[in-house]
Amino acid sequence: MDDYRQLKKHFHETGYLHRAISLLDWDHETYLPAKGVPFRADQQAFLSRLAHERLTSNRVADLIASCESNSTAMNATQQANIRAWRRDRDRAVKLPTDFVEHFEKTCALGKAAWTEARRTSQFELFASHLEQLVELSRKKADYYGYKEHPYDALMDEYEPGCTNRILTPIFEQLKQSIVSWLPYGIEKTNQIPSNLLESNYPIQDQAKFNTMVARAMGFDFQSGRIDTTTHPFCTDLGPHDVRLTTRYELKDFAVSLYSVLHEAGHGLYEQGFCPEHAGTPMAEAVSLGIHESQSRLWENKVGRAPEFWSEWYGKACQCLPSLKPFSPEEITMAVNRVSPSFIRVEADEVTYDLHIILRFELEKLLISGDLPVKDVPKVWNARFKEMFGIEVPDDTHGCLQDIHWSMGGFGYFPTYTLGNLHSAQLYAAAEKTLGHRIHLLQDGCYTPLLDWLRSNVHQHGRRHEPATLIREATGQDIQASFHGEYLKKRLEAIGV
Amino acid sequence: MDDYRQLKKHFHETGYLHRAISLLDWDHETYLPAKGVPFRADQQAFLSRLAHERLTSNRVADLIASCESNSTAMNATQQANIRAWRRDRDRAVKLPTDFVEHFEKTCALGKAAWTEARRTSQFELFASHLEQLVELSRKKADYYGYKEHPYDALMDEYEPGCTNRILTPIFEQLKQSIVSWLPYGIEKTNQIPSNLLESNYPIQDQAKFNTMVARAMGFDFQSGRIDTTTHPFCTDLGPHDVRLTTRYELKDFAVSLYSVLHEAGHGLYEQGFCPEHAGTPMAEAVSLGIHESQSRLWENKVGRAPEFWSEWYGKACQCLPSLKPFSPEEITMAVNRVSPSFIRVEADEVTYDLHIILRFELEKLLISGDLPVKDVPKVWNARFKEMFGIEVPDDTHGCLQDIHWSMGGFGYFPTYTLGNLHSAQLYAAAEKTLGHRIHLLQDGCYTPLLDWLRSNVHQHGRRHEPATLIREATGQDIQASFHGEYLKKRLEAIGV
Repeated sequence: MDDYRQLKKHFHETGYLHRAISLLDWDHETYLPAKGVPFRADQQAFLSRLAHERLTSNRVADLIASCESNSTAMNATQQANIRAWRRDRDRAVKLPTDFVEHFEKTCALGKAAWTEARRTSQFELFASHLEQLVELSRKKADYYGYKEHPYDALMDEYEPGCTNRILTPIFEQLKQSIVSWLPYGIEKTNQIPSNLLESNYPIQDQAKFNTMVARAMGFDFQSGRIDTTTHPFCTDLGPHDVRLTTRYELKDFAVSLYSVLHEAGHGLYEQGFCPEHAGTPMAEAVSLGIHESQSRLWENKVGRAPEFWSEWYGKACQCLPSLKPFSPEEITMAVNRVSPSFIRVEADEVTYDLHIILRFELEKLLISGDLPVKDVPKVWNARFKEMFGIEVPDDTHGCLQDIHWSMGGFGYFPTYTLGNLHSAQLYAAAEKTLGHRIHLLQDGCYTPLLDWLRSNVHQHGRRHEPATLIREATGQDIQASFHGEYLKKRLEAIGV
Repeated sequence: MDDYRQLKKHFHETGYLHRAISLLDWDHETYLPAKGVPFRADQQAFLSRLAHERLTSNRVADLIASCESNSTAMNATQQANIRAWRRDRDRAVKLPTDFVEHFEKTCALGKAAWTEARRTSQFELFASHLEQLVELSRKKADYYGYKEHPYDALMDEYEPGCTNRILTPIFEQLKQSIVSWLPYGIEKTNQIPSNLLESNYPIQDQAKFNTMVARAMGFDFQSGRIDTTTHPFCTDLGPHDVRLTTRYELKDFAVSLYSVLHEAGHGLYEQGFCPEHAGTPMAEAVSLGIHESQSRLWENKVGRAPEFWSEWYGKACQCLPSLKPFSPEEITMAVNRVSPSFIRVEADEVTYDLHIILRFELEKLLISGDLPVKDVPKVWNARFKEMFGIEVPDDTHGCLQDIHWSMGGFGYFPTYTLGNLHSAQLYAAAEKTLGHRIHLLQDGCYTPLLDWLRSNVHQHGRRHEPATLIREATGQDIQASFHGEYLKKRLEAIGV
């Protein structure tokens, strides 16, 4: 037991370092002066190295082994923590230090090349970098090891236990279902023009309304805050310090509102761990897919529901008087408008997953070696046409739009769609228990729903693998059908 | 030479940690959510321990010793760096770890007790804590070692080389000079009422004007920024990342303006080190007194001069239309108004040093054991009456007003007055060279003055002890007369 305590203390202290790195990062995005960037980058690298050294030390290996050999004396929570520490350490030592450094340098150069390639829409400026990144990612997969597909080793970093064999049929089913609903969705929601709500929404008024909604979701502003960045994100800087960011468009209140709903969904997960587990894996997010399920659930299942706008219409009009000319039904229709488009981050809820499935398919081909890098634009454009029915005008609006590949993040994209699938499945399970109370404010807060998420998702931290968590929370393995059903129902429910 | 390079790298990397701690601190004061405080405190303590371990390691001792034994091969800059590293390490190892921990805990309890004591004006709530803090500070002085007075060992932490023997006659002379000028200052400046400028100055308008002035001083907003805190401060988070903070009073623009001038003075020092020395003592402030000389010089010698208000009057009125009813002469008079008062941080420039001298005298008596803690309020009140001519109403307005003792910061106060003395002496030397150009804007900036400070103060970092720096910059040892002369001239120059 003494070894367990030492291990816990060691990781608890390593957490101080990780959170300091997260603060350096948050500050980088929010308030860092321009010329401070190079020093900050070196500083982050140094602190990351310290944290890595602490994770990979022999002392940690010995302590973990000793706890494992004594596991019968441990309770379930302690055993789960040890499993998580084992996983983290093993993954960390599998990559040789030289390889990690080479990978990081390649990413840094890759990111710069990608930025320029995207700006000028010249894929060839990025091609040789992408080749190296693919090659290094295959090597990474070899270091990690895998049973069936090298892509599995890469996905496992973001979604433990997730494999190509599990995902491919589910994604295929989802694709069929979306494609079959797409024409109906377009026809129904295009009754209103795309710029219907375009008006003037002063930033501070938007912020006021967003804060009201986040508070009602249960986001604790004594343990968190909202700042402004170019790309919204959520980061936890401590057990009671969760930072959200958003961005504002003067003419379109929905940009900041739905990014706050999304990021506050992430934030509620971080604020929802059990305080007594602070500093251990029991108070850490289990995967990106589960994390994304929380953000998507609040952003879409709650925030774009007709119930949301009947609930919030009055307060929204008070904060944002430019909304008054529109009915709650019109607003609901506008924020659910379906329209195939080129850019993933601007996609509607129905077509969003098609963007992900396209990337998922191409990534697998790249990693298995079946798609030469030089053919990426051609294959991207052909498949895009097939799925979306529109012609990609240039690579900036095609295969160059996302930053992920330039950062070597193969295997990350599928977690976005996993987030949608999980959120639909969790939402359906919550609805079974809560009925209409799922959209109900109780003392001004979405207490019934939040309580359900707290006890079925948040409080478990990394106790189970994501697949187990979903099974225990919903009574079923992951299914594509929930998300398809949800999309169908939502499209049927809205109307002006 | 290889040892020197290793040492430099080691301290350069330790700097990453120190700057991370400074960011944790800055964030604590600016944006940290309320419930995040306890975690942050533990996190700061942990990172401080890491930094301390890096400073006190045997490897560092060996490398320093090796460099010292090979000092003839080093250039002057390298030798100065080694001297500084030696000083820092020796001081750090002189205090046993147990003692440091005990000291910190006593401070934490002391600070809590002081907060309550000040709130309720009950000295007895703080007395036993203060006794322990005095006792521990005497012990600290013993650990550090000293030749003549234990207080010297404590002051040396903030102002290397400064002693009671040097300071006492200078402070005595200053006191005489202030006391003799005080009645004239009061009589002259009290021609206008204390609330003359009281009006409505919207925060964003104040911020706009302050930024304009800070920019003209030469503060680089690409390498720094200004935020809002309860107590203004300046911190450097990297070679190109200097953060100032200020606070705003809606009715009194001068509060934020002069705190920005003050903190930007500190900030210019931090931004003024040679980039090639980044990460070494050559790019660190030499002492608190020299740091304060820079803030005081800009705040008072520049910012309260009649020349300042003839220069800035037009722009100030544009930003802050409520200033229009007043002439530049009236504004100058108002911001130089002399009036004995109880609270140090609200004191005018003439009486400010009397506050410091009172604390300096009492601190020495406490540390030498000649003043029992229980007698502090009595002695404070009696001396205050003698120096200021007014009766202290309660301990909140007397010996309980400052936080420093509750943090065990004995020896800190004198650096405030050293800042005034140094700033007056530097200002006189700069004036000798620059004449009226000292207040001159060149291409919108105080370039002549800033250039003089850059080459005579900033760029030297910790090359010399503060006393040597002053001697080289001004041609003379520290003198009380410059500050006295400056106050006299200033009072004579203003008038409506």
